[in-house]
Amino acid sequence: MEEFEKKIGIKFNNIKTLENAFVHRSYLNENKEKFSQHNERMEFLGDAVLELCATDFLYKNFPQKKEGELTAIRSALVNTESLCNAAKKLNLEENLLMSKGESLEKKGRNHILANTFEALVGAIYLDGEKDGFFKAYTFLENFLFDYAFEIVEKNLFRDPKSYFQEIAQEVIPATPEYKLISEKGPDHDKNFIVGAYIGDEKISEGEGKSKQKAEVDAAKKALIKKGWE
Amino acid sequence: MEEFEKKIGIKFNNIKTLENAFVHRSYLNENKEKFSQHNERMEFLGDAVLELCATDFLYKNFPQKKEGELTAIRSALVNTESLCNAAKKLNLEENLLMSKGESLEKKGRNHILANTFEALVGAIYLDGEKDGFFKAYTFLENFLFDYAFEIVEKNLFRDPKSYFQEIAQEVIPATPEYKLISEKGPDHDKNFIVGAYIGDEKISEGEGKSKQKAEVDAAKKALIKKGWE
Repeated sequence: MEEFEKKIGIKFNNIKTLENAFVHRSYLNENKEKFSQHNERMEFLGDAVLELCATDFLYKNFPQKKEGELTAIRSALVNTESLCNAAKKLNLEENLLMSKGESLEKKGRNHILANTFEALVGAIYLDGEKDGFFKAYTFLENFLFDYAFEIVEKNLFRDPKSYFQEIAQEVIPATPEYKLISEKGPDHDKNFIVGAYIGDEKISEGEGKSKQKAEVDAAKKALIKKGWE
Repeated sequence: MEEFEKKIGIKFNNIKTLENAFVHRSYLNENKEKFSQHNERMEFLGDAVLELCATDFLYKNFPQKKEGELTAIRSALVNTESLCNAAKKLNLEENLLMSKGESLEKKGRNHILANTFEALVGAIYLDGEKDGFFKAYTFLENFLFDYAFEIVEKNLFRDPKSYFQEIAQEVIPATPEYKLISEKGPDHDKNFIVGAYIGDEKISEGEGKSKQKAEVDAAKKALIKKGWE
Protein backbone atom coordinates (compact mmCIF):
# COMPACT_ATOMS: atom_id res chain seq x y z
CA MET A 1 0.00 0.00 0.00
CA GLU A 2 2.89 2.37 0.71
CA GLU A 3 4.30 1.77 -2.73
CA PHE A 4 0.91 2.50 -4.17
CA GLU A 5 0.72 5.77 -2.20
CA LYS A 6 4.01 6.79 -3.78
CA LYS A 7 2.79 5.88 -7.23
CA ILE A 8 -0.27 8.13 -6.97
CA GLY A 9 1.52 10.81 -4.91
CA ILE A 10 -1.01 10.79 -2.06
CA LYS A 11 -0.32 10.05 1.60
CA PHE A 12 -3.42 8.67 3.31
CA ASN A 13 -4.37 9.72 6.84
CA ASN A 14 -5.83 6.29 7.37
CA ILE A 15 -4.29 3.58 5.25
CA LYS A 16 -7.27 1.32 5.96
CA THR A 17 -9.44 3.59 3.83
CA LEU A 18 -7.13 3.00 0.87
CA GLU A 19 -7.05 -0.75 1.51
CA ASN A 20 -10.82 -0.86 1.62
CA ALA A 21 -11.03 0.53 -1.92
CA PHE A 22 -9.48 -2.71 -3.15
CA VAL A 23 -11.82 -5.14 -1.38
CA HIS A 24 -14.08 -6.79 -3.94
CA ARG A 25 -17.36 -8.29 -2.74
CA SER A 26 -16.11 -11.82 -3.53
CA TYR A 27 -13.06 -11.43 -1.27
CA LEU A 28 -15.10 -10.27 1.72
CA ASN A 29 -17.17 -13.45 1.75
CA GLU A 30 -14.02 -15.53 2.24
CA ASN A 31 -12.15 -13.11 4.54
CA LYS A 32 -14.66 -11.67 6.94
CA GLU A 33 -12.11 -11.46 9.73
CA LYS A 34 -9.87 -9.08 7.75
CA PHE A 35 -12.33 -6.53 6.43
CA SER A 36 -15.75 -5.43 7.62
CA GLN A 37 -16.99 -4.23 4.25
CA HIS A 38 -16.38 -4.42 0.52
CA ASN A 39 -15.72 -1.42 -1.70
CA GLU A 40 -19.20 -0.80 -3.12
CA ARG A 41 -20.26 2.03 -0.81
CA MET A 42 -16.95 3.72 -1.58
CA GLU A 43 -17.53 3.20 -5.28
CA PHE A 44 -20.97 4.82 -4.88
CA LEU A 45 -19.26 7.88 -3.43
CA GLY A 46 -16.35 7.82 -5.89
CA ASP A 47 -18.69 7.70 -8.86
CA ALA A 48 -20.25 11.02 -7.81
CA VAL A 49 -16.84 12.59 -7.05
CA LEU A 50 -15.63 11.55 -10.49
CA GLU A 51 -18.78 12.95 -12.09
CA LEU A 52 -18.36 16.39 -10.51
CA CYS A 53 -14.60 16.59 -11.11
CA ALA A 54 -15.09 15.61 -14.76
CA THR A 55 -17.96 18.09 -15.15
CA ASP A 56 -15.94 20.94 -13.62
CA PHE A 57 -12.89 20.06 -15.72
CA LEU A 58 -14.87 20.02 -18.99
CA TYR A 59 -16.87 23.13 -18.05
CA LYS A 60 -13.67 25.10 -17.52
CA ASN A 61 -11.49 23.64 -20.28
CA PHE A 62 -14.08 23.80 -23.06
CA PRO A 63 -15.82 27.16 -22.53
CA GLN A 64 -17.18 27.22 -26.10
CA LYS A 65 -18.96 23.90 -25.87
CA LYS A 66 -22.62 23.66 -24.97
CA GLU A 67 -24.07 21.40 -22.31
CA GLY A 68 -25.24 18.76 -24.81
CA GLU A 69 -21.78 18.30 -26.23
CA LEU A 70 -20.19 18.47 -22.76
CA THR A 71 -22.51 15.66 -21.66
CA ALA A 72 -21.38 13.52 -24.61
CA ILE A 73 -17.69 14.19 -23.88
CA ARG A 74 -18.20 13.38 -20.21
CA SER A 75 -19.88 10.06 -21.06
CA ALA A 76 -16.87 9.10 -23.15
CA LEU A 77 -14.49 10.22 -20.39
CA VAL A 78 -16.04 8.28 -17.51
CA ASN A 79 -17.31 5.15 -19.26
CA THR A 80 -16.14 1.67 -18.27
CA GLU A 81 -13.57 1.44 -21.06
CA SER A 82 -11.93 4.74 -20.16
CA LEU A 83 -11.82 4.01 -16.42
CA CYS A 84 -10.56 0.51 -17.07
CA ASN A 85 -7.68 1.92 -19.12
CA ALA A 86 -6.79 4.32 -16.29
CA ALA A 87 -6.98 1.41 -13.83
CA LYS A 88 -4.63 -0.62 -16.00
CA LYS A 89 -2.08 2.20 -16.22
CA LEU A 90 -2.06 2.30 -12.41
CA ASN A 91 -1.92 -1.49 -12.36
CA LEU A 92 -4.80 -1.61 -9.87
CA GLU A 93 -5.24 -5.32 -10.57
CA GLU A 94 -2.06 -5.96 -8.60
CA ASN A 95 -3.69 -4.58 -5.43
CA LEU A 96 -7.20 -5.86 -6.00
CA LEU A 97 -8.45 -8.34 -3.41
CA MET A 98 -10.92 -10.74 -4.95
CA SER A 99 -11.88 -14.39 -4.75
CA LYS A 100 -9.79 -16.53 -7.07
CA GLY A 101 -12.94 -18.06 -8.51
CA GLU A 102 -14.25 -14.67 -9.58
CA SER A 103 -14.92 -13.78 -13.19
CA LEU A 104 -11.73 -13.80 -15.19
CA GLU A 105 -13.49 -13.29 -18.48
CA LYS A 106 -12.66 -9.98 -20.07
CA LYS A 107 -15.96 -8.11 -19.85
CA GLY A 108 -16.51 -8.83 -16.16
CA ARG A 109 -12.90 -8.11 -15.30
CA ASN A 110 -12.97 -4.72 -17.05
CA HIS A 111 -16.08 -3.80 -15.15
CA ILE A 112 -14.48 -4.74 -11.83
CA LEU A 113 -11.36 -2.70 -12.65
CA ALA A 114 -13.43 0.38 -13.56
CA ASN A 115 -15.39 0.04 -10.31
CA THR A 116 -12.16 -0.27 -8.33
CA PHE A 117 -10.93 2.95 -9.93
CA GLU A 118 -14.11 4.68 -8.76
CA ALA A 119 -13.72 3.22 -5.27
CA LEU A 120 -10.16 4.56 -5.20
CA VAL A 121 -11.44 8.05 -6.10
CA GLY A 122 -13.99 7.70 -3.28
CA ALA A 123 -11.25 6.67 -0.84
CA ILE A 124 -9.08 9.68 -1.73
CA TYR A 125 -12.08 12.00 -1.33
CA LEU A 126 -13.12 10.50 1.98
CA ASP A 127 -9.69 10.25 3.54
CA GLY A 128 -8.75 13.80 2.53
CA GLU A 129 -11.62 15.26 4.56
CA LYS A 130 -11.75 19.03 3.83
CA ASP A 131 -9.11 18.68 1.13
CA GLY A 132 -10.58 15.45 -0.20
CA PHE A 133 -12.32 17.01 -3.16
CA PHE A 134 -9.18 18.81 -4.33
CA LYS A 135 -7.01 15.75 -3.78
CA ALA A 136 -9.39 13.63 -5.84
CA TYR A 137 -9.50 16.33 -8.53
CA THR A 138 -5.70 16.46 -8.76
CA PHE A 139 -5.50 12.67 -8.86
CA LEU A 140 -7.96 12.63 -11.78
CA GLU A 141 -6.05 15.38 -13.59
CA ASN A 142 -2.92 13.26 -13.27
CA PHE A 143 -4.36 9.90 -14.22
CA LEU A 144 -7.51 10.36 -16.31
CA PHE A 145 -8.40 13.81 -17.60
CA ASP A 146 -5.72 14.11 -20.29
CA TYR A 147 -7.87 11.67 -22.20
CA ALA A 148 -10.56 14.41 -22.48
CA PHE A 149 -8.41 16.29 -25.00
CA GLU A 150 -7.95 13.14 -27.05
CA ILE A 151 -11.73 12.55 -26.99
CA VAL A 152 -12.33 16.05 -28.33
CA GLU A 153 -9.52 16.01 -30.89
CA LYS A 154 -10.46 12.64 -32.32
CA ASN A 155 -14.21 13.25 -32.12
CA LEU A 156 -14.67 10.17 -29.98
CA PHE A 157 -17.79 11.71 -28.49
CA ARG A 158 -19.76 12.92 -31.50
CA ASP A 159 -23.33 11.79 -31.72
CA PRO A 160 -23.72 9.66 -34.85
CA LYS A 161 -26.28 11.91 -36.59
CA SER A 162 -24.19 15.10 -36.36
CA TYR A 163 -21.07 13.21 -37.33
CA PHE A 164 -22.72 11.56 -40.34
CA GLN A 165 -24.06 14.95 -41.48
CA GLU A 166 -20.72 16.66 -41.06
CA ILE A 167 -18.82 14.08 -43.09
CA ALA A 168 -21.51 13.81 -45.78
CA GLN A 169 -21.46 17.59 -46.22
CA GLU A 170 -17.70 17.56 -46.47
CA VAL A 171 -17.18 14.52 -48.67
CA ILE A 172 -20.13 14.42 -51.07
CA PRO A 173 -21.25 17.27 -50.36
CA ALA A 174 -24.87 16.60 -49.41
CA THR A 175 -27.05 16.67 -46.31
CA PRO A 176 -28.44 13.32 -45.16
CA GLU A 177 -32.16 12.97 -44.65
CA TYR A 178 -34.22 10.52 -42.59
CA LYS A 179 -37.52 9.05 -43.67
CA LEU A 180 -39.92 6.95 -41.65
CA ILE A 181 -40.28 3.51 -43.20
CA SER A 182 -42.59 1.83 -40.71
CA GLU A 183 -44.12 2.25 -37.30
CA LYS A 184 -45.43 -0.74 -35.36
CA GLY A 185 -46.97 -1.72 -32.06
CA PRO A 186 -49.30 -0.10 -29.51
CA ASP A 187 -48.76 3.46 -28.26
CA HIS A 188 -46.80 2.52 -25.15
CA ASP A 189 -44.55 0.14 -27.07
CA LYS A 190 -43.92 1.47 -30.55
CA ASN A 191 -41.09 0.41 -32.80
CA PHE A 192 -39.87 2.69 -35.56
CA ILE A 193 -37.88 1.85 -38.66
CA VAL A 194 -36.21 4.77 -40.35
CA GLY A 195 -34.05 5.06 -43.46
CA ALA A 196 -31.00 7.33 -43.80
CA TYR A 197 -30.83 8.82 -47.30
CA ILE A 198 -28.35 10.84 -49.26
CA GLY A 199 -30.36 12.27 -52.13
CA ASP A 200 -32.52 9.38 -53.37
CA GLU A 201 -30.13 6.68 -52.25
CA LYS A 202 -31.02 4.79 -49.10
CA ILE A 203 -27.76 4.20 -47.25
CA SER A 204 -29.08 2.28 -44.24
CA GLU A 205 -32.03 1.44 -42.04
CA GLY A 206 -32.21 1.90 -38.28
CA GLU A 207 -34.73 0.93 -35.67
CA GLY A 208 -35.68 2.13 -32.21
CA LYS A 209 -38.40 2.92 -29.68
CA SER A 210 -38.63 6.50 -30.92
CA LYS A 211 -38.00 8.17 -34.28
CA GLN A 212 -34.97 9.89 -32.79
CA LYS A 213 -33.46 6.58 -31.60
CA ALA A 214 -34.16 4.94 -34.95
CA GLU A 215 -32.43 7.85 -36.72
CA VAL A 216 -29.36 7.58 -34.49
CA ASP A 217 -29.25 3.85 -35.21
CA ALA A 218 -29.56 4.51 -38.95
CA ALA A 219 -26.76 7.10 -38.82
CA LYS A 220 -24.46 4.62 -37.03
CA LYS A 221 -25.12 2.00 -39.69
CA ALA A 222 -24.67 4.54 -42.49
CA LEU A 223 -21.25 5.51 -41.09
CA ILE A 224 -20.22 1.85 -41.14
CA LYS A 225 -21.67 1.25 -44.63
CA LYS A 226 -19.74 4.24 -45.98
CA GLY A 227 -16.56 3.30 -44.13
CA TRP A 228 -16.64 6.64 -42.31
CA GLU A 229 -16.71 5.36 -38.76
CA MET B 1 -30.72 40.02 -6.39
CA GLU B 2 -29.45 41.45 -3.12
CA GLU B 3 -32.65 40.44 -1.39
CA PHE B 4 -32.21 36.98 -2.79
CA GLU B 5 -28.62 36.84 -1.49
CA LYS B 6 -29.95 37.62 1.98
CA LYS B 7 -32.62 34.94 1.69
CA ILE B 8 -30.08 32.23 0.92
CA GLY B 9 -27.39 33.69 3.19
CA ILE B 10 -24.70 33.83 0.50
CA LYS B 11 -22.85 36.92 -0.71
CA PHE B 12 -21.69 36.49 -4.31
CA ASN B 13 -18.29 37.71 -5.46
CA ASN B 14 -19.77 38.42 -8.86
CA ILE B 15 -23.49 39.13 -8.82
CA LYS B 16 -23.66 38.49 -12.56
CA THR B 17 -23.00 34.81 -11.91
CA LEU B 18 -26.10 34.68 -9.72
CA GLU B 19 -28.18 36.59 -12.27
CA ASN B 20 -27.09 34.21 -14.99
CA ALA B 21 -28.59 31.25 -13.09
CA PHE B 22 -32.03 32.77 -13.68
CA VAL B 23 -31.74 33.29 -17.44
CA HIS B 24 -33.97 30.80 -19.22
CA ARG B 25 -33.20 29.98 -22.85
CA SER B 26 -36.43 31.67 -23.98
CA TYR B 27 -35.48 34.99 -22.36
CA LEU B 28 -32.07 35.11 -24.01
CA ASN B 29 -33.56 35.00 -27.49
CA GLU B 30 -35.47 38.19 -26.82
CA ASN B 31 -32.81 39.97 -24.73
CA LYS B 32 -29.46 39.28 -26.32
CA GLU B 33 -28.13 42.68 -25.33
CA LYS B 34 -28.56 41.98 -21.61
CA PHE B 35 -27.08 38.50 -21.25
CA SER B 36 -24.57 36.57 -23.30
CA GLN B 37 -25.76 33.11 -22.28
CA HIS B 38 -28.66 31.20 -20.77
CA ASN B 39 -28.40 29.04 -17.65
CA GLU B 40 -28.00 25.60 -19.21
CA ARG B 41 -24.23 25.27 -18.91
CA MET B 42 -24.56 26.31 -15.28
CA GLU B 43 -27.32 23.75 -14.79
CA PHE B 44 -25.00 21.09 -16.27
CA LEU B 45 -22.45 21.99 -13.60
CA GLY B 46 -25.02 22.35 -10.80
CA ASP B 47 -26.50 18.94 -11.52
CA ALA B 48 -23.12 17.30 -10.82
CA VAL B 49 -22.53 19.43 -7.70
CA LEU B 50 -25.94 18.42 -6.39
CA GLU B 51 -25.23 14.77 -7.15
CA LEU B 52 -21.98 14.73 -5.17
CA CYS B 53 -23.33 16.75 -2.24
CA ALA B 54 -26.38 14.47 -2.00
CA THR B 55 -24.19 11.37 -2.28
CA ASP B 56 -21.82 12.59 0.44
CA PHE B 57 -24.71 13.59 2.70
CA LEU B 58 -26.43 10.20 2.37
CA TYR B 59 -23.16 8.28 2.67
CA LYS B 60 -22.38 9.98 5.97
CA ASN B 61 -25.89 10.21 7.44
CA PHE B 62 -26.97 6.65 6.67
CA PRO B 63 -23.90 4.55 7.44
CA GLN B 64 -25.94 1.34 7.72
CA LYS B 65 -27.48 1.57 4.27
CA LYS B 66 -25.98 -0.17 1.29
CA GLU B 67 -25.24 1.45 -2.04
CA GLY B 68 -28.40 0.10 -3.71
CA GLU B 69 -30.66 1.67 -1.14
CA LEU B 70 -28.59 4.88 -1.07
CA THR B 71 -29.03 5.13 -4.83
CA ALA B 72 -32.81 4.82 -4.45
CA ILE B 73 -32.90 7.47 -1.70
CA ARG B 74 -30.74 9.80 -3.79
CA SER B 75 -33.06 9.44 -6.80
CA ALA B 76 -36.00 10.46 -4.63
CA LEU B 77 -34.02 13.36 -3.17
CA VAL B 78 -32.87 14.92 -6.44
CA ASN B 79 -35.80 14.19 -8.76
CA THR B 80 -37.75 16.96 -10.50
CA GLU B 81 -40.55 16.98 -7.94
CA SER B 82 -38.22 17.34 -4.99
CA LEU B 83 -36.12 20.10 -6.62
CA CYS B 84 -39.25 21.88 -7.77
CA ASN B 85 -40.54 21.94 -4.19
CA ALA B 86 -37.26 23.40 -2.97
CA ALA B 87 -37.42 25.98 -5.78
CA LYS B 88 -40.93 26.93 -4.73
CA LYS B 89 -39.92 27.40 -1.09
CA LEU B 90 -37.23 29.81 -2.27
CA ASN B 91 -39.74 31.41 -4.62
CA LEU B 92 -37.28 31.13 -7.51
CA GLU B 93 -40.09 31.83 -9.95
CA GLU B 94 -40.04 35.46 -8.82
CA ASN B 95 -36.47 35.88 -10.10
CA LEU B 96 -36.72 33.67 -13.18
CA LEU B 97 -36.20 35.47 -16.49
CA MET B 98 -38.19 33.80 -19.22
CA SER B 99 -40.19 34.70 -22.28
CA LYS B 100 -43.81 35.44 -21.43
CA GLY B 101 -44.91 33.04 -24.14
CA GLU B 102 -43.06 30.15 -22.51
CA SER B 103 -44.79 27.03 -21.23
CA LEU B 104 -47.07 27.88 -18.35
CA GLU B 105 -48.53 24.42 -18.17
CA LYS B 106 -47.69 22.66 -14.95
CA LYS B 107 -45.38 19.90 -16.12
CA GLY B 108 -43.14 22.16 -18.18
CA ARG B 109 -43.06 24.82 -15.52
CA ASN B 110 -42.02 22.34 -12.80
CA HIS B 111 -39.21 21.13 -15.00
CA ILE B 112 -37.98 24.68 -15.57
CA LEU B 113 -38.07 25.42 -11.84
CA ALA B 114 -36.10 22.28 -11.00
CA ASN B 115 -33.51 23.19 -13.65
CA THR B 116 -33.24 26.72 -12.26
CA PHE B 117 -32.58 25.25 -8.82
CA GLU B 118 -29.71 23.22 -10.31
CA ALA B 119 -28.38 26.29 -12.12
CA LEU B 120 -28.43 28.17 -8.81
CA VAL B 121 -26.39 25.39 -7.17
CA GLY B 122 -23.96 25.65 -10.10
CA ALA B 123 -23.70 29.43 -9.66
CA ILE B 124 -22.93 29.11 -5.93
CA TYR B 125 -20.28 26.48 -6.65
CA LEU B 126 -18.68 28.49 -9.43
CA ASP B 127 -18.72 31.87 -7.72
CA GLY B 128 -17.35 30.45 -4.47
CA GLU B 129 -14.15 29.29 -6.20
CA LYS B 130 -12.11 27.28 -3.63
CA ASP B 131 -14.98 27.42 -1.13
CA GLY B 132 -17.63 26.85 -3.77
CA PHE B 133 -18.15 23.20 -3.02
CA PHE B 134 -18.67 23.84 0.71
CA LYS B 135 -20.94 26.81 0.06
CA ALA B 136 -23.10 24.74 -2.26
CA TYR B 137 -23.14 21.89 0.29
CA THR B 138 -24.28 24.23 3.08
CA PHE B 139 -26.92 25.76 0.82
CA LEU B 140 -28.28 22.28 0.05
CA GLU B 141 -28.26 21.32 3.74
CA ASN B 142 -30.32 24.43 4.45
CA PHE B 143 -32.80 24.17 1.60
CA LEU B 144 -33.05 20.56 0.41
CA PHE B 145 -31.42 17.81 2.43
CA ASP B 146 -33.85 17.74 5.37
CA TYR B 147 -36.16 16.03 2.93
CA ALA B 148 -33.79 13.01 2.92
CA PHE B 149 -34.90 12.09 6.44
CA GLU B 150 -38.54 12.29 5.42
CA ILE B 151 -37.83 10.06 2.40
CA VAL B 152 -36.27 7.44 4.66
CA GLU B 153 -38.87 7.68 7.45
CA LYS B 154 -41.82 7.44 5.11
CA ASN B 155 -40.22 4.85 2.84
CA LEU B 156 -40.65 7.08 -0.18
CA PHE B 157 -37.73 5.33 -1.83
CA ARG B 158 -38.48 1.64 -1.39
CA ASP B 159 -38.45 -0.46 -4.47
CA PRO B 160 -41.95 -1.86 -4.98
CA LYS B 161 -40.99 -5.56 -4.81
CA SER B 162 -39.21 -5.34 -1.45
CA TYR B 163 -41.94 -3.15 -0.04
CA PHE B 164 -44.72 -5.49 -1.21
CA GLN B 165 -42.89 -8.46 0.28
CA GLU B 166 -42.29 -6.70 3.58
CA ILE B 167 -45.91 -5.70 4.04
CA ALA B 168 -47.27 -9.06 2.88
CA GLN B 169 -45.04 -10.85 5.38
CA GLU B 170 -46.17 -8.54 8.13
CA VAL B 171 -49.89 -8.37 7.37
CA ILE B 172 -50.87 -11.79 6.04
CA PRO B 173 -48.20 -13.25 6.74
CA ALA B 174 -47.07 -14.72 3.41
CA THR B 175 -44.32 -14.22 0.86
CA PRO B 176 -45.44 -13.02 -2.59
CA GLU B 177 -44.38 -14.99 -5.63
CA TYR B 178 -44.09 -14.02 -9.28
CA LYS B 179 -44.99 -16.26 -12.19
CA LEU B 180 -44.40 -15.69 -15.87
CA ILE B 181 -47.72 -15.51 -17.72
CA SER B 182 -46.52 -14.72 -21.24
CA GLU B 183 -43.50 -13.74 -23.24
CA LYS B 184 -43.84 -12.14 -26.66
CA GLY B 185 -41.81 -10.61 -29.44
CA PRO B 186 -38.37 -11.18 -30.99
CA ASP B 187 -35.25 -11.50 -28.83
CA HIS B 188 -34.21 -7.84 -29.04
CA ASP B 189 -37.72 -6.62 -28.27
CA LYS B 190 -39.37 -8.99 -25.82
CA ASN B 191 -42.38 -8.14 -23.71
CA PHE B 192 -43.07 -10.04 -20.50
CA ILE B 193 -46.30 -10.37 -18.55
CA VAL B 194 -45.91 -11.55 -14.99
CA GLY B 195 -48.44 -12.23 -12.22
CA ALA B 196 -47.89 -11.39 -8.54
CA TYR B 197 -49.35 -14.11 -6.33
CA ILE B 198 -49.96 -14.56 -2.65
CA GLY B 199 -50.49 -18.29 -2.24
CA ASP B 200 -52.73 -19.31 -5.14
CA GLU B 201 -54.40 -15.94 -5.47
CA LYS B 202 -53.25 -13.72 -8.33
CA ILE B 203 -53.21 -10.18 -6.98
CA SER B 204 -52.08 -8.35 -10.12
CA GLU B 205 -50.39 -8.54 -13.50
CA GLY B 206 -47.43 -6.44 -14.61
CA GLU B 207 -45.64 -6.03 -17.89
CA GLY B 208 -42.19 -4.93 -19.00
CA LYS B 209 -39.22 -5.43 -21.29
CA SER B 210 -37.61 -7.84 -18.83
CA LYS B 211 -38.97 -10.26 -16.23
CA GLN B 212 -37.54 -8.03 -13.50
CA LYS B 213 -39.32 -4.93 -14.87
CA ALA B 214 -42.58 -6.84 -15.25
CA GLU B 215 -42.28 -8.02 -11.63
CA VAL B 216 -41.69 -4.48 -10.37
CA ASP B 217 -44.73 -3.35 -12.33
CA ALA B 218 -46.81 -6.20 -10.88
CA ALA B 219 -45.66 -5.35 -7.34
CA LYS B 220 -46.69 -1.69 -7.83
CA LYS B 221 -50.13 -2.74 -9.01
CA ALA B 222 -50.47 -5.26 -6.17
CA LEU B 223 -49.72 -2.53 -3.61
CA ILE B 224 -52.48 -0.39 -5.12
CA LYS B 225 -54.91 -3.32 -5.34
CA LYS B 226 -54.33 -4.11 -1.68
CA GLY B 227 -54.50 -0.47 -0.60
CA TRP B 228 -50.93 -0.76 0.75
CA GLU B 229 -49.31 1.98 -1.30
